[in-house]
Amino acid sequence: MAVQTVANTGNPTVDLGPAAALSCRECGHRVPLGPVFACEECFGPLEIAYDFSAYDTEELRKRIEAGPANIWRYAPLLPVPADVADKPNINPGWTQLVKADNLARELGVTGGLYVKDDSGNPTHSFKDRVVAQALEAARAFGFTTLSCSSTGNLAGAVGAAAARAGFRSCVFIPHDLEQGKVVMAAVYGGELVGIEGNYDDVNRFCSELIGDPAGEGWGFVNVNLRPYYAEGSKTLAYEICEQLGWQLPDQLVVPIASGSQLTKIDKGLQELIKLGLVEDKPYKIFGAQAEGCSPVSVAFKAGHDVVRPQKPNTIAKSLAIGNPADGPYVLDIARRTGGAVEDVTDEQVVEAIKILARTEGIFAETAGGVTVGVTKKLIENGVLDPSLTTVVLNTGDGLKTLDAVAGTGLTATIRPSLDSFREAGLV
Amino acid sequence: MAVQTVANTGNPTVDLGPAAALSCRECGHRVPLGPVFACEECFGPLEIAYDFSAYDTEELRKRIEAGPANIWRYAPLLPVPADVADKPNINPGWTQLVKADNLARELGVTGGLYVKDDSGNPTHSFKDRVVAQALEAARAFGFTTLSCSSTGNLAGAVGAAAARAGFRSCVFIPHDLEQGKVVMAAVYGGELVGIEGNYDDVNRFCSELIGDPAGEGWGFVNVNLRPYYAEGSKTLAYEICEQLGWQLPDQLVVPIASGSQLTKIDKGLQELIKLGLVEDKPYKIFGAQAEGCSPVSVAFKAGHDVVRPQKPNTIAKSLAIGNPADGPYVLDIARRTGGAVEDVTDEQVVEAIKILARTEGIFAETAGGVTVGVTKKLIENGVLDPSLTTVVLNTGDGLKTLDAVAGTGLTATIRPSLDSFREAGLV
Repeated sequence: MAVQTVANTGNPTVDLGPAAALSCRECGHRVPLGPVFACEECFGPLEIAYDFSAYDTEELRKRIEAGPANIWRYAPLLPVPADVADKPNINPGWTQLVKADNLARELGVTGGLYVKDDSGNPTHSFKDRVVAQALEAARAFGFTTLSCSSTGNLAGAVGAAAARAGFRSCVFIPHDLEQGKVVMAAVYGGELVGIEGNYDDVNRFCSELIGDPAGEGWGFVNVNLRPYYAEGSKTLAYEICEQLGWQLPDQLVVPIASGSQLTKIDKGLQELIKLGLVEDKPYKIFGAQAEGCSPVSVAFKAGHDVVRPQKPNTIAKSLAIGNPADGPYVLDIARRTGGAVEDVTDEQVVEAIKILARTEGIFAETAGGVTVGVTKKLIENGVLDPSLTTVVLNTGDGLKTLDAVAGTGLTATIRPSLDSFREAGLV
Repeated sequence: MAVQTVANTGNPTVDLGPAAALSCRECGHRVPLGPVFACEECFGPLEIAYDFSAYDTEELRKRIEAGPANIWRYAPLLPVPADVADKPNINPGWTQLVKADNLARELGVTGGLYVKDDSGNPTHSFKDRVVAQALEAARAFGFTTLSCSSTGNLAGAVGAAAARAGFRSCVFIPHDLEQGKVVMAAVYGGELVGIEGNYDDVNRFCSELIGDPAGEGWGFVNVNLRPYYAEGSKTLAYEICEQLGWQLPDQLVVPIASGSQLTKIDKGLQELIKLGLVEDKPYKIFGAQAEGCSPVSVAFKAGHDVVRPQKPNTIAKSLAIGNPADGPYVLDIARRTGGAVEDVTDEQVVEAIKILARTEGIFAETAGGVTVGVTKKLIENGVLDPSLTTVVLNTGDGLKTLDAVAGTGLTATIRPSLDSFREAGLV
């Protein structure tokens, strides 16, 4: 049962399990597995081509179910060696799929509403999933330094994974980042380099470094290891379906930053269908953005196939990519599946964070406020069908974006006496 | 195979699974299951007495292994109904037991070193385990408000659990708590009441409220629900042994606040032995405190059986209980098992947080710094045997005590150029 059978053109010294080659998403050109990310023919993005031809569906299902309570249960479907679970890694995943009955009542969903809560990952964001993959690729390619440019979640995930695996880490951030975020990244003890400039300057510098002898032996998780890194998002699709009892949900609401996560979730769902692990049925994928960084939402509503870059200005900083690389693919998936792309204001993001916390006890970062807020808006606008099974992603942790809800506080202040308590009207 | 067979004297309307009665730890007096915490005969602490007599060891093991990836896999050993996993709760537990080979090398441990990382719980501390238990008791007793006094982790755990389960919550804190901690507790939307006074005033007020009609229908997780609440800590023992392949570790290093956690971990290990789920062998339990709040450590070193209260002054605020209720039991367990109680300075706590982050990618709160720091000190002093299998607990998350490592920062600041990069000596 082959999802995509390719000749194994890979480097024979690289064992990344079922990963057979890199394949250009645009022109299909294939190259051996290696630390490359752009097609030499057309400059399109490279992604992993797998050989799943040897799998028997029911044997595969049993193997997954007997696997560890983390993403490595899906090792047979990922670009990792078969013994990945025995190697030092941060082992993210198998986070809770919360049946959100209170939130469902609040939003009027009757068909079953679930929150996939990725704040349960080791460094409390979905980035642990992608970094764990990139780490295995870095190991396979003989890299000794794990690196990235970041303004937040990614820095912590890279620092933690490198520490666990005994890699050197070198993370590049804008030099004027908030002190709290610097501490969260610095505590893992790797190199943390402030660049005098903005995030674009940081990225440009990293691209320069990859091409320079100074960057030899360096794996930049979201640049030269990007094809491997991106596959980590497939595990969200796998887990959601397995946790639903090997069923596809009817609707998913997914945040959009670069758009890679949404694209790979769709890829993961398609793989499960083709492998026979879930029954094929229609599903709709909805993309969620903040209004202050809504290039894909704007393009979707205008009926465009291309995305016009924006200069981000939103509290949802983990989604603030103004020129999302996978934007066109997201537009295609939203349209093809009958979904949509929508955005919400920062005020709606904050309101949604509070709704989710109040109804389900889940304290999401701003990105989770974006998906819950967009879900609410899509229901109110009649776009999302409340009678269908719906899964909303929370990809990060409220402790990392406390400023967003800084206005929250005491509901009463009293003296330590029953009289004062009664006066406050609390009973 | 009965750990403790008692006549079921319980309230027939209360279904808390194998929990048969409450039993006084001091005089053995038994009372039916209910929201009481002190013996009416001798004022000793009440704890749960179970009827495990119906269990077959291998059937029980299979049932546990087939259970969910959270504490409810141990429902047959906890004061909860058999269908607990289907009720709305935050479902903590089954957190990672990290094989900490890098930390082992750093500390010179050769017999296998593990970190039980409870920062993976829903609100990122071990408190989720105990609150989840208290919530089930509150449900069984028909309470509609979940309450507690707190200065931190507990407030968030109660707020989240109450929200998920549809309970009202009312959390009492000192009115002048740091804004960040207030936000973490307030976001769940329950009542958050600031008391004009210190933590002792808050506690005194809560005890008054329980005895007053105003507190009717209120479950205070750590007061009138304490016997149920405390049992949550047993799950740490169960998980550690199951994750070690149903084996006892040789040595455990456990933080001491009230001492309840350490006491219940010992109870959990004893249950596993008596049920035949692990092979009996000697194990040593070590208690860890911060020097600035070290009443149990001081008593241990002085050879005392009683604990003299202290006025806490340490950055390890989640352990800062100056008059620990279970102190004498901790002394007994440490002595009986051949363990010890030790303390470390705040500087050693910070150093240990950084060592754990740098070696294993685990960012612990100050309580985790205490256990790792004490482990290091015990090895250096020849008290803890580095050739034996050792488990160190991290009970909380570094994101909640960022101030402790606020001095951590950028390792370099450069211009966005390769020349500047080379000048900084980073290659």
